[in-house]
Amino acid sequence: AAAAIEAACAGPRFDAASIGARGAAGGNPVIPLVRDLGGAVPEAARPWVHHGATSQDILDTALSLVARRALAPVLAAAGRAGDAAAGLAGAHRDTVMVGRTLGQQAAPTTFGLVAAGWLHGLDVSTAALGVARDRLAAQLGGPVGTLAALGPTGPDVLAGFATELGLAAPVLPWHTDRQRLLDLAAALGRVAAAAGKIAVDVVGLAQTEVAELAEGGAGRGGSSAMPHKANPVRAVLVASAARRVPALVSAMFSAGTHEHQRAAGGWHAEWETLPELVGAVGGAVAHTADLLVGLRVDTARMRRNLDASGGFAMTERLATALAGVLGRSAAHDVVARCCRDAVGRGVPLRTALLADAEVAAAMPTERIDHVLDPSGWLGSADAFVTAALAHHARRGQEGDR
Amino acid sequence: AAAAIEAACAGPRFDAASIGARGAAGGNPVIPLVRDLGGAVPEAARPWVHHGATSQDILDTALSLVARRALAPVLAAAGRAGDAAAGLAGAHRDTVMVGRTLGQQAAPTTFGLVAAGWLHGLDVSTAALGVARDRLAAQLGGPVGTLAALGPTGPDVLAGFATELGLAAPVLPWHTDRQRLLDLAAALGRVAAAAGKIAVDVVGLAQTEVAELAEGGAGRGGSSAMPHKANPVRAVLVASAARRVPALVSAMFSAGTHEHQRAAGGWHAEWETLPELVGAVGGAVAHTADLLVGLRVDTARMRRNLDASGGFAMTERLATALAGVLGRSAAHDVVARCCRDAVGRGVPLRTALLADAEVAAAMPTERIDHVLDPSGWLGSADAFVTAALAHHARRGQEGDR
Amino acid sequence: AAAAIEAACAGPRFDAASIGARGAAGGNPVIPLVRDLGGAVPEAARPWVHHGATSQDILDTALSLVARRALAPVLAAAGRAGDAAAGLAGAHRDTVMVGRTLGQQAAPTTFGLVAAGWLHGLDVSTAALGVARDRLAAQLGGPVGTLAALGPTGPDVLAGFATELGLAAPVLPWHTDRQRLLDLAAALGRVAAAAGKIAVDVVGLAQTEVAELAEGGAGRGGSSAMPHKANPVRAVLVASAARRVPALVSAMFSAGTHEHQRAAGGWHAEWETLPELVGAVGGAVAHTADLLVGLRVDTARMRRNLDASGGFAMTERLATALAGVLGRSAAHDVVARCCRDAVGRGVPLRTALLADAEVAAAMPTERIDHVLDPSGWLGSADAFVTAALAHHARRGQEGDR
Amino acid sequence: AAAAIEAACAGPRFDAASIGARGAAGGNPVIPLVRDLGGAVPEAARPWVHHGATSQDILDTALSLVARRALAPVLAAAGRAGDAAAGLAGAHRDTVMVGRTLGQQAAPTTFGLVAAGWLHGLDVSTAALGVARDRLAAQLGGPVGTLAALGPTGPDVLAGFATELGLAAPVLPWHTDRQRLLDLAAALGRVAAAAGKIAVDVVGLAQTEVAELAEGGAGRGGSSAMPHKANPVRAVLVASAARRVPALVSAMFSAGTHEHQRAAGGWHAEWETLPELVGAVGGAVAHTADLLVGLRVDTARMRRNLDASGGFAMTERLATALAGVLGRSAAHDVVARCCRDAVGRGVPLRTALLADAEVAAAMPTERIDHVLDPSGWLGSADAFVTAALAHHARRGQEGDR
Repeated sequence: AAAAIEAACAGPRFDAASIGARGAAGGNPVIPLVRDLGGAVPEAARPWVHHGATSQDILDTALSLVARRALAPVLAAAGRAGDAAAGLAGAHRDTVMVGRTLGQQAAPTTFGLVAAGWLHGLDVSTAALGVARDRLAAQLGGPVGTLAALGPTGPDVLAGFATELGLAAPVLPWHTDRQRLLDLAAALGRVAAAAGKIAVDVVGLAQTEVAELAEGGAGRGGSSAMPHKANPVRAVLVASAARRVPALVSAMFSAGTHEHQRAAGGWHAEWETLPELVGAVGGAVAHTADLLVGLRVDTARMRRNLDASGGFAMTERLATALAGVLGRSAAHDVVARCCRDAVGRGVPLRTALLADAEVAAAMPTERIDHVLDPSGWLGSADAFVTAALAHHARRGQEGDR
Repeated sequence: AAAAIEAACAGPRFDAASIGARGAAGGNPVIPLVRDLGGAVPEAARPWVHHGATSQDILDTALSLVARRALAPVLAAAGRAGDAAAGLAGAHRDTVMVGRTLGQQAAPTTFGLVAAGWLHGLDVSTAALGVARDRLAAQLGGPVGTLAALGPTGPDVLAGFATELGLAAPVLPWHTDRQRLLDLAAALGRVAAAAGKIAVDVVGLAQTEVAELAEGGAGRGGSSAMPHKANPVRAVLVASAARRVPALVSAMFSAGTHEHQRAAGGWHAEWETLPELVGAVGGAVAHTADLLVGLRVDTARMRRNLDASGGFAMTERLATALAGVLGRSAAHDVVARCCRDAVGRGVPLRTALLADAEVAAAMPTERIDHVLDPSGWLGSADAFVTAALAHHARRGQEGDR
Repeated sequence: AAAAIEAACAGPRFDAASIGARGAAGGNPVIPLVRDLGGAVPEAARPWVHHGATSQDILDTALSLVARRALAPVLAAAGRAGDAAAGLAGAHRDTVMVGRTLGQQAAPTTFGLVAAGWLHGLDVSTAALGVARDRLAAQLGGPVGTLAALGPTGPDVLAGFATELGLAAPVLPWHTDRQRLLDLAAALGRVAAAAGKIAVDVVGLAQTEVAELAEGGAGRGGSSAMPHKANPVRAVLVASAARRVPALVSAMFSAGTHEHQRAAGGWHAEWETLPELVGAVGGAVAHTADLLVGLRVDTARMRRNLDASGGFAMTERLATALAGVLGRSAAHDVVARCCRDAVGRGVPLRTALLADAEVAAAMPTERIDHVLDPSGWLGSADAFVTAALAHHARRGQEGDR
Repeated sequence: AAAAIEAACAGPRFDAASIGARGAAGGNPVIPLVRDLGGAVPEAARPWVHHGATSQDILDTALSLVARRALAPVLAAAGRAGDAAAGLAGAHRDTVMVGRTLGQQAAPTTFGLVAAGWLHGLDVSTAALGVARDRLAAQLGGPVGTLAALGPTGPDVLAGFATELGLAAPVLPWHTDRQRLLDLAAALGRVAAAAGKIAVDVVGLAQTEVAELAEGGAGRGGSSAMPHKANPVRAVLVASAARRVPALVSAMFSAGTHEHQRAAGGWHAEWETLPELVGAVGGAVAHTADLLVGLRVDTARMRRNLDASGGFAMTERLATALAGVLGRSAAHDVVARCCRDAVGRGVPLRTALLADAEVAAAMPTERIDHVLDPSGWLGSADAFVTAALAHHARRGQEGDR
């Protein structure tokens, strides 16, 4: 009977539209599918079609299989995005730019460190997604999860079924235990957050007034009304997905409480939500990879924007340097006074410093210029880049950390 | 200076209400906290207060510390709930009850298997929560994540800071990489789903018309207007949390995309959401543990409800048994005919079977009664209970699977 | 030029697949659409294609038009569901059943009142949906919402455009003011909640152990493994939608904050979410209407379930009746004592009452039986049915109340 | 009895902490509250305490009352914010600035129109909130919504109860019909979206590189590490609320499907969610009002940023002007060529235009300068400001439109 059923399955395709239409009456498409498959096998084999199984066994297993297959390109794109971010981190270790907090220029950092942060978010979330993918399991429990029709062979059949399909074998049927799917949904949400972080940074740094980054690629981002514009199109699409995904994650969690031996609603709510979620995240990581591969980095503009801050981004270093001469308290007071003076007069901080008698007494002009040089105030940026790259290199060997 | 600052920290408590009120002006409470701490140390030590750090370093680290501390009782309650579920699974391996799908009586199972399903959901989600807890990290990056003021010692100071606080050491500062918090939020959501599954089952099985379970404990569930009622109060509160939690999870994911070097809104949105989430889940697991410890199982009622199904729950077995005599196709037809007859006449299936000539020819009455006995049609229920208990016994040794 | 452009629009259909594929590069499909339309008109007319408009004008207006069209069958189905609920409310004014709180039998009510509650939720939410539909507006603002290319005629053109399309005319362009869409999303969510209430009640009342309701219709709810089952398939699908919809509503609200003159992500996140939302709610109300039209009400079973409560549902009335003889305090004590006695001995409350000397002294047996008759303890159920039906009859005349 | 009960209610406060603690056992605080109130009245009055009511009557009515009271300052702050936005719209009708789409400078607009958009979002959402507030109703239905204990007086008592409390009188008890609360939650979400729009605009326009707006007020936005910074603190807190609120809205909708005559979980899930929602939105509108009242508008910087675009923001006008001479198609081609030239050479568009022979032939330099003047290309900005102000002036007279 198994051979006959297998042959019928491998034969001409079933009529998915018809199965779908007929499935509405019974609440799921397995009922007409089983009927059609039964009609396609010899009579003797017919009773063995769907033997011992329940509709949810088929649909849950199909969900695992389809999700597993759909995640292959998602994980590949995430890997491609990660490699591109790693490339940027390595290439821009010494590219100085201004760091921004709450939208305000704050202190110097490097674009390498920014990219290292992107990389690490991608690496950690992608690792979680890989783990969730590997946990996707076969489902086989029969009507109420006991595999009654299989007699004592139930666990063995379940394990063999899982092996044959390349899915994980569950400890017990999971008709009403949706932990695997919640894990998957959350991992997808985490990947979307990592991609979304890149997107909002690119949108922010591609703003006309900032212009440190631009999306590459021919014909990108043209506006219908304004041909000179270069909209960060991919970043916008990724940011869009990052807005939608948290709600889709919550839909999976809202559907995650299944009563009795089959949920009246919770189960069905997963059917459209999970594909939407995989699609949204998959699109987002593919755009992110393209975005990172083609990203144009205007290092001169980065430096110019930093310099335009007029030295305000260097106050922490300035206070530290002055402290060695004046003591830390006096140094803080002097810096605050000069900042107020510069802001009040609308001049660069350097001008205010040179005009301040106490500063002039404490430091010669060359020393002031040295202290105001952002490339000397990058702290551990390079070390953190190295650490993120090392973590990226050994990913897959240590799990999600 | 360190000794002086430490002494000031250990001294009389800070005025939290005042710090909170003053914190609104600057957007976070660290600014007045640093001011007050500065005022409490000798002048020489003052410049070293908050040296090299930024407000987010303090608040993120505090969040990790507080979450870690708050998760201790949550994990303990989850463990207590798991042990109680394991106790029920073991004690009720042979307690036959009817399994229900979409609210309809379907086929026999055991209450042990039901409890094993509860157990496994708790075990898997609690393991995920433990992993997320252990990933909670110290935060130290300075204004833009470079630890500039610490010179070359940044990574060592960060590592030492983490060790001293009993938190994980991050690969790099995570001001705008919220993966740890998303992981935590998702794990909390998974625990809530596992607890929520138990709750909806208990509410369903405690319904007046079902009455297979009841919450234990003196004075539980009294109604203000109806003194005879026994409301499943704990289950209701857990179900309530399971409704709220997915939204709180999504709030964390919505807050998870942080632009530049400090997010203007995303970061702040975590402050109230995470405590609400921990509180909701913590309350849910505590109630779940109490509920499971005190649960009253009416095994006689379980059997009575199963018998009341009049044999319909046994049709799968019946068809299997008849197939040995009539062939599977004819057997299916006979069972379907007898079911229609029984439903149509409003009699138990047994009555219809005995009245059916083909059945009577195929099976003597004793054989029919044997086939209709649900205790012989439990398949792998016992094996699955054993597997879930074994998984529970080795939890903590193999991570979240 | 207008005539030429109109003729080109009315001609052979555009290649939607090609427009979609090309739209990805620019971030929206209007850019290739304008190009194709430009190519289809005479050269002289070409510059007037899309004159003064921006992509968002086209997409937002299309969204309003499509949503308006899609809401017609949704509102029709909601009206059909409401009429069916009104029919049930009127037909079952006198059908006594037990009311259930927290899953416990509580006190008598009527199925008419239950259906009146369903009706009222549908009426109020459908009215809100109609209002939201009527607020859907045309969009026309040009690149930054000033309609600069139209000179002083902007507001008139916008008003005329809206009139021609049968859409509301906005006070000003709403590129970044999404209140209309949030209103629509919320109204859809409210309709889903009203339908979901019906669904969870039907699932609950169709449970095997309760069996007061069943879905009608040939071939409904068959199970693949258990042919005798009658799954409440439509109710399950509606309940499923009710689980998904709140998340889709939140996705619209999360997308509802649009920065500057065009949002980089928020806008785009609406494109897939709103159709999913309309589709989910539309399916839910269509199933709800079918469900209500075909609903089978087992009034005998309703009465039997109420009687099976053994009088416990009548304690409020009993206490009231005894209070007239014994005083309210003593009456309460007596009732509580008899309830405890009945629960303890596992007998109906009537038995305990007859066995209680104080009750026997206060009331003859006929009086006890009168008091225990639920049909005399329905309070304002009938009046509330009348009020809900009256509200239904005048809906559309008074808005959402 | 009523007088005695009223006197007891008006007497010394009840012990809320004790009521809360004892309420856990029964699942709600009304049970111990009724007990305590009963203990505070003479024995004869005791049976009339809570007569005919159920716990949910008390809690739902309390929710309506508390929400109504809490909404007063929310609506007042929203009104204050609206008035401040109206003031800005009127004062800045002629303040030219560049409009930005997807973060890119696009075309000129006025800050007055930007503020008019803020105003309109506030007006429409605040009107919806007012309507939702006025729909908050008294609850009185007794155990199952029939008001059985009140005999035929039920509807009258309910109406009187509502009148006495200043709440709406419902058509029928709404124990399981949560439309009012969903309406309220959605209106709160809409107000948060309107405030959030203002916040993200302010954060964007206060960026160091843009600097067109700044929050006013002494001591605002100081950074713990960088004293010269002026963080947009209020906008950040509002943006934070706008991130959280959609999830809280969805929590209300997820809790909005109540089974039978009292929901086992859905009802309870509202208790913490609604106060969180009102608090988040209330804080957001209060900060928004303060923000708008104190907002510093740097009109010179707005003009400078617009001029810095080098004429690219004027391409739409340029093409229109050239079309009159060259025909529209040729005009488009010329503009596109000059844009490419300017971008390629890194010069302002004006320079490229002056260097282009075809442009030079078509327009004298003065005409080019006239065309490039943004103040002549504001279209209907002023008319839209007038329309929004007129709508604001007549708000409250025409409902939510």
